[in-house]
Amino acid sequence: MRTQVAIIGGGPAGLFLAHLLRRTGVDAVVLERRDRVYVEGRVRAGVLEQVTVDLMHRLELGERLRAEGLVHNGTNIAAEGQLFRIDMAELTGGSTVTVYGQQEVMKDLFDAAESRGVRVIFDAEDVALHDIDSAKPYVTWRKDGVEQRLDCDVIAGCDGFHGVSRAAIPAGVLKTFERVYPFGWLGVLADVPPCDHELIYCNHERGFALASMRSPTRSRYYLQCGLDEKIEDWSDDRFWDELCLRLGEEAAARVTRGPSFEKSIAPLRSFVGEPMRHGRLFLAGDAAHIVPPTGAKGMNLAVSDVVMLAEALSEYFLDGSEAGLDGYSARALARVWKAERFSWWFTGLTHRFPDRDGFDRKMQVAELDYIRGSRAAQVTLAENYVGLPLV
Amino acid sequence: MRTQVAIIGGGPAGLFLAHLLRRTGVDAVVLERRDRVYVEGRVRAGVLEQVTVDLMHRLELGERLRAEGLVHNGTNIAAEGQLFRIDMAELTGGSTVTVYGQQEVMKDLFDAAESRGVRVIFDAEDVALHDIDSAKPYVTWRKDGVEQRLDCDVIAGCDGFHGVSRAAIPAGVLKTFERVYPFGWLGVLADVPPCDHELIYCNHERGFALASMRSPTRSRYYLQCGLDEKIEDWSDDRFWDELCLRLGEEAAARVTRGPSFEKSIAPLRSFVGEPMRHGRLFLAGDAAHIVPPTGAKGMNLAVSDVVMLAEALSEYFLDGSEAGLDGYSARALARVWKAERFSWWFTGLTHRFPDRDGFDRKMQVAELDYIRGSRAAQVTLAENYVGLPLV
Repeated sequence: MRTQVAIIGGGPAGLFLAHLLRRTGVDAVVLERRDRVYVEGRVRAGVLEQVTVDLMHRLELGERLRAEGLVHNGTNIAAEGQLFRIDMAELTGGSTVTVYGQQEVMKDLFDAAESRGVRVIFDAEDVALHDIDSAKPYVTWRKDGVEQRLDCDVIAGCDGFHGVSRAAIPAGVLKTFERVYPFGWLGVLADVPPCDHELIYCNHERGFALASMRSPTRSRYYLQCGLDEKIEDWSDDRFWDELCLRLGEEAAARVTRGPSFEKSIAPLRSFVGEPMRHGRLFLAGDAAHIVPPTGAKGMNLAVSDVVMLAEALSEYFLDGSEAGLDGYSARALARVWKAERFSWWFTGLTHRFPDRDGFDRKMQVAELDYIRGSRAAQVTLAENYVGLPLV
Repeated sequence: MRTQVAIIGGGPAGLFLAHLLRRTGVDAVVLERRDRVYVEGRVRAGVLEQVTVDLMHRLELGERLRAEGLVHNGTNIAAEGQLFRIDMAELTGGSTVTVYGQQEVMKDLFDAAESRGVRVIFDAEDVALHDIDSAKPYVTWRKDGVEQRLDCDVIAGCDGFHGVSRAAIPAGVLKTFERVYPFGWLGVLADVPPCDHELIYCNHERGFALASMRSPTRSRYYLQCGLDEKIEDWSDDRFWDELCLRLGEEAAARVTRGPSFEKSIAPLRSFVGEPMRHGRLFLAGDAAHIVPPTGAKGMNLAVSDVVMLAEALSEYFLDGSEAGLDGYSARALARVWKAERFSWWFTGLTHRFPDRDGFDRKMQVAELDYIRGSRAAQVTLAENYVGLPLV
């Protein structure tokens, strides 16, 4: 089998890239280790930047997003018993974010893939990348017990943090930067109305809390927890009690309790591998970088990566120019590092760090106090939250 | 001897307070451990916020400042071989800072003190505070071998970080917050023209550097150095070589070398004691809080403290209201903590920390890159640099 671009991984990065290439007439095949039900069922991000919303519409995938997505003009920060709102739309000249679960995005991407001839091979086991240093790279995998091979010109590594793509780059080539945070997020999904029509990020002495949502009838709540904590120690009752304690009386009074249907603990990590290219392999999304979930940059960064990568690949295959490919890593990383900085900063501003002291805590409080009183500081938060422009 | 306000310490905090009280008709005496020559000769800060400039003029002490002070509309940041300017005046709607050495401020304050009947007692040894919990506090000291006593209604502790005032507060009453930085500043004064008409803050891989000045013919330069380094290891030649290396080719080409006439190493510290009042004792300036010198907030914070304290004391002695005195600590600390945050942040942005890793370094670079490209981020830097409003 032969194609121009072999896309490793059928998550948001891989599928958005496949759709973008399909529209420009570049031939691509997506290889996904799991089946569609698994990929579509993964509970992940839920807040889309304008860049991501724009891409959904540009790809004519935005019909359901337009009908069901919740546009948020602002977000809220609670600390020291006080709550204040960041009016993102007013502060940025009209930019907003849209609540629409990654599961919904994947459904839209997969539904359209079939009708538009975007090729996705599911259940591709033991994917391996070969000769990525050469002009004739290829990919092998096993499906239904049969060895398969795909020859290609370029490989797009979109298979996430634990995927094979980044691991295929020879040791010593990649410079990695990492921060592991000394806590996790305990997340809960429940079919109850959210406590607010916008998000509430809460810095409480017992730890961070986040009130979010997936729809007007589905709430998404998070609590900062210890990395050694166990799901089974968190009954629904304990979760709701702790959540209400951290959110504070006013918001707690609006919390509707109900049975959770998903409960999980996720670690928080910052990670970047540089460069995002090696030979004919180009990394995009979580394969190249990870952000802590504070500020919801993960999927949005994958989107900005593949928008840039698709431009570079179109230039290469349609115009015969390598300039875009040569510039891809630096261009993508410039935006990635700013989003890494924002996610790291926003995590540091809102969480309790067991290894930090009273002075650090005072710096948090002073910064929150400063943001509350400074329009410029609010603009910096807002412009990063809605997403910095693609340049 | 009797007065209304005993002011401990004849530095900027104490002298500004004495002048402010003199104007409103509140009786005060300043007790200073050293002589005038010593206090006036101390090499300290050199960048005045608008709040400080305004106070000099309000006190009719601004004649020489107007003639000799250097008004700076902007400041510069150099990193990764790139230099960019923060146009403070444009970003803040006209606010500036003024370069005018603390030594000059002290000279103006002392000169006017004599002619205006502001009482300053120099060479007051072994100053001790008594009965600060009572309505009848008093201060004792020794001068020329003779024990002296000053009865008063209120004591203003303006005697700096190592002074006796903060130490007079019983253990357990004061909550303290501290950060000691793992480096120092090696500072040099030389009678050569500065390399730029504005300041240059430089983040270099070998450490922070700052190009500053005292006048068009007097340069003030600093280099980040290890806490264990010794002055005698830093010949003038070595200093100029290292400075030029860190400043980068463009600025280095404009550096005029010459013999230094002052060279010293100072540690960097953040410190706040809360509250700033105990009984009839009120702390102001370095007696209550210390900032690292990055951003030049030290003397300016002392000024905003004593402006607030003078208002509170006038209310008390002239109107008979304790409201101002009761609110002083919280009011002063609200501004202090924001300046502490700014100084801590600006230090963190521009220095090399031996205990930090590659990820931290990338966060610095990303933040500098973000500031370079974001007007809002530049406004936050500028509005803090020129000084947040007194509220």
